This record gives sequence, structure tokens and C-alpha cells, in this order.
Amino acid sequence: MSSNKINRVAIVGGTHGNELTGVYLIKKFEHSPSLVKRSTFETLTLLGNPRAFEAGTRYIDKDLNRSFSSSDLSNPDPSNYEDIRAREICQILGTRNDSKCEFIVDLHSTTSNMGLTIIIGQDNDPLILKLAAYLASNNPLVKIFRWGTTQNNSFLRSLCSRSIAIEVGAIAHGVLHPWYLKEVEDLVYSILDFLRDNNKNQVKAVSETVTIYEGKELVDYPRNSYGDIKACIHPHLMSKDFTALPPGKPMFLTFEGETITYQGKSIVYPTFVNEASYYEKGIAMCLAQKQQIYI
Amino acid sequence: MSSNKINRVAIVGGTHGNELTGVYLIKKFEHSPSLVKRSTFETLTLLGNPRAFEAGTRYIDKDLNRSFSSSDLSNPDPSNYEDIRAREICQILGTRNDSKCEFIVDLHSTTSNMGLTIIIGQDNDPLILKLAAYLASNNPLVKIFRWGTTQNNSFLRSLCSRSIAIEVGAIAHGVLHPWYLKEVEDLVYSILDFLRDNNKNQVKAVSETVTIYEGKELVDYPRNSYGDIKACIHPHLMSKDFTALPPGKPMFLTFEGETITYQGKSIVYPTFVNEASYYEKGIAMCLAQKQQIYI
Repeated sequence: MSSNKINRVAIVGGTHGNELTGVYLIKKFEHSPSLVKRSTFETLTLLGNPRAFEAGTRYIDKDLNRSFSSSDLSNPDPSNYEDIRAREICQILGTRNDSKCEFIVDLHSTTSNMGLTIIIGQDNDPLILKLAAYLASNNPLVKIFRWGTTQNNSFLRSLCSRSIAIEVGAIAHGVLHPWYLKEVEDLVYSILDFLRDNNKNQVKAVSETVTIYEGKELVDYPRNSYGDIKACIHPHLMSKDFTALPPGKPMFLTFEGETITYQGKSIVYPTFVNEASYYEKGIAMCLAQKQQIYI
Repeated sequence: MSSNKINRVAIVGGTHGNELTGVYLIKKFEHSPSLVKRSTFETLTLLGNPRAFEAGTRYIDKDLNRSFSSSDLSNPDPSNYEDIRAREICQILGTRNDSKCEFIVDLHSTTSNMGLTIIIGQDNDPLILKLAAYLASNNPLVKIFRWGTTQNNSFLRSLCSRSIAIEVGAIAHGVLHPWYLKEVEDLVYSILDFLRDNNKNQVKAVSETVTIYEGKELVDYPRNSYGDIKACIHPHLMSKDFTALPPGKPMFLTFEGETITYQGKSIVYPTFVNEASYYEKGIAMCLAQKQQIYI
């Protein structure tokens, strides 16, 4: 496990150019660096995908937040914008084996009703679990979602052995949402305060356990033989991220009005329900299990 | 004023490719034409911007719903996709002076909290006002918004002397929203039923007046000297479309936390508050006045 000392923290926003919460917080922090300055480490701020932001889109050529796998980064001749931008970002943040920071916070938003969600990796890093418990204890609206590994995947945050993403929503892409802008700003300050205190060994345990929603299964929309969507999210499930879905309950409603129910064997908790950017990825939602994890 | 007889009605969806409510309703109607067939006129359905839908964007080169002015259509050598597509649409729907239909319904969605809004033109056509009153009386959630003229502007619906747009939201672009999908479908059927009965002179007056929100003024986000946005919609105004805004009440909140208030002299009703697609147009909202109009 990594040392607990954090020397450099990177806050990244606008990894997706149309997720404006992160973009405008980075602009604010760059305008007033004292807001994110803390006594025990250096803070770096970075606008992930400036060209996509200017264009008002998620990305120019490909999803930047799926451009950091080892094979992506070993391509000797990157030609599209995001592959080139991924290299530039590695110059700043370092790479998995040669990291220039000890912690990454990547700011995202979602059209799903995810509220204030912290996404952590699967490797049970005690510092990350303590941070998650601290944030959830500070703000009961915070949910902890575990998905992917922090190492060797294609997410930007995988460049660092310790990292989290913030997913906030429901926010339409391309929109600056005043309620969530403040919530995410406060969450960033809480994270920085925690890391500052952790460097001084002044973090007190807030609880023995933390509630985690662990992503287990991606579910696509029902499709016809041409591959076209033939059902939408069921009205009863819409906006019900993190709400228990027992077997037999409605998941989708076909355009002809037929209800399609959840056919699993146990209660699951849908997340990323009806996220706009996931239609092209063939993802209608991610089913999670709720767990109590000892810290 | 035009004759009251309607021989051909065009229902258009996906004029903006990422407004999926209209796209999927058109697909449904094309799959089951009997749903929109009525005894006293012919119904035509049209997917406005198929390439933008495939790309998951509002448009490819320019806003198709700003491509129907007389000067746009008189360009002898259109080169971008939407200008070419506008000509194709004129082949199907006709033009202002040579219309192939007597009524257009153009289906849109918005990231603003507009609920179920019917947009009508300013020319006080008694048939349109009767239709508006009928729809509002059928469903008290329906709001009537008046904006622009039906003739000689750049909207698709300006191709026909009688037309309305439906604006439904809040819906994130790129998302199929199950609640609103059904609401808009039912609204389309109500419109068709009204037009069928109107052709038979069987429409009964539902009221003497109708409440109209008349768009008066477009308001941009506050910007700094570089032209960058320096404030977001005030949290108190967010999602408050069609809610009275008296002078002195909050409109914007700067990123430094300063409240900017509405400086007008009379109560207005903000509409299209924080619509994602209007950032690039320099529109934060459209201020409307509320009026009772005699039919």
C-alpha cells in the first residue's frame, strides 16, 4: 500500500468538455488559487479537455476519460486530439509508474440523478475508505460508488494510485447548475481539508464502516434486430438512482407500452440511470450492490 | 386569415438531433401510422435532422431550426449539411408561398424546466388561439408561449402559415425521458383530434380567453471583458420557468458569490432558463409577460 503522505494533489475538471461544473470550478480555482491551497501539500488544477469545452461537446474525437490505458499511452504515433491530449496530461500529472502527484480528484457531472457521488476504485486503500467515510459523514447526501480499479484502466484518474471521481447530477450536459456547483465546490474543499489533516496525522475516524454501492453489471437498453432502442427507462425507475430495485420490478417500458421487469435474483441499486453519454456505449444503467465495508 | 380547412398536417421531430422525445415519437408514428391518422386530413411525419440524430448532436454544421429564412432558402449554392437539409425539407413540406401542408407541429425538448409548453406565433390566428385554449383546458400543466412570427423567420415551422412547436422539459439533451415521452405523445393526439374536429366544425369553445406568456426580451449571462460567463443562474431562479420574477429579485450569482438582481420595472416570467443550447447564442433566459388574450 502507498505511503500516506500526499505531496501533490491534482484537481481536474472538464475531462468531458460539456460537464461544466468541473470546468467552471477549475476556472474559479485558477483565478483564486488560495481557495485550493492547503498547508501540507501542493495543489495543481487542470482543465482536462479544453477543445471539447470550446466546442460544447463531451469530446472531439474520442472519450478522453477512456484514453489512459497502458496500450493507449504506448501508441507511438497518436493522431486524434484526445490521444494527443492524454499525452500532454501525462506530462503534467505523470504516469502510473512515474507519478507526479499522489492524489487526483476528477470532477464530472451526469444526467442521471446520482446526487453527490464519490467514485472510488476497488483496491480497498484504507486512506480512500477513510476519506469516503469522512465525506459521507460530513454530508449525508454523499453516496460512495465503487467501480473499476484505480490501476491500469483507461480513466484519467488511473494515472495515480490514489484518486477519486466526483459525479454530480442530474445535470444536463452543457449546463452550469447553480445548486450543484456550490455542493461540488464544498466537497472539493472537504477533500482538501481531509488530505491536509491526514498529512498531519490529525484525521480522526468518524465510523468503523462505510456504505458502498459496488457496480456489478452494465445493462443496455432493449434493442430490436437492427440494434435500435425499443424501450426507454421505465417511468417508475427514472431518476431512482441508488434506490433498491427488487426482482420483478419495472426496468424498461417498450414504445408499445410493455413493461420489462428486472429478472435478477437479489435486490440491486441502479446507478447512472439514463446517462446521455452512455447511449452510444450501450449502457442504460449500472446495477450495484449495497455493502457495508469495514475501514 | 387562412381558410380553416386543414388538408395536410406535418409532424416533425428531431429538428434538433439530440432532442430525442421528438425523434422517437416520429419513429413510433412511422412504425404505426394509424396512431396519427385522422379522418378529415392527411398526416405526414418527418425526422428533421437524421444526421445530427445519428451523431448525437443538436446539428452538424448549423442550427437547422434557424435555416429557413427567405435569404437562407434563396442561397443558390448551399454547401453545409443543414442548408442542404432545409431544401430537402422544403421539397416535402413546401415553402411559405407554395405550402404542401396547412399545419406543422414541430417537437422539441429543452433542458429548461418548461414543463409542457406550446409555442405559437404572434399573428393572433383564431384557430391557433382556439387550439391553445383547448390544449390548456385538457391539461392544466400546458403553458402557452408566444414568440416570433409564423411568417418569414428562420424556424422550420415558419414554412407554414399555421404551426406550433412543443417544448418539453427539463430534459437533458441526448436523453429519452419516459415521463415526458408519454405527455408529448398524448399532446400530439389532442392536437390531431382538435384539427379533425375543426375540419368538421365540431370544435366547441372551451373558454373566452387563454393565458399567454409573451416573450419580450432575451437576457444573456453576465460576462467579463473577455466575453466569458462570470455568473450562473441564481439558485433561487433555477428551474423556475413561468414563475413570477418581480423587480429586485435574484437573477444571477457571480462565481465570487455576488447576487445580481432583476432591474426591470414590472413583473416578468422567465422562460428557457439555463437552456444548454442557448449558451452559444448568448441567451440565459427569455423574459415573458403574462397576458389574458380573448379568443
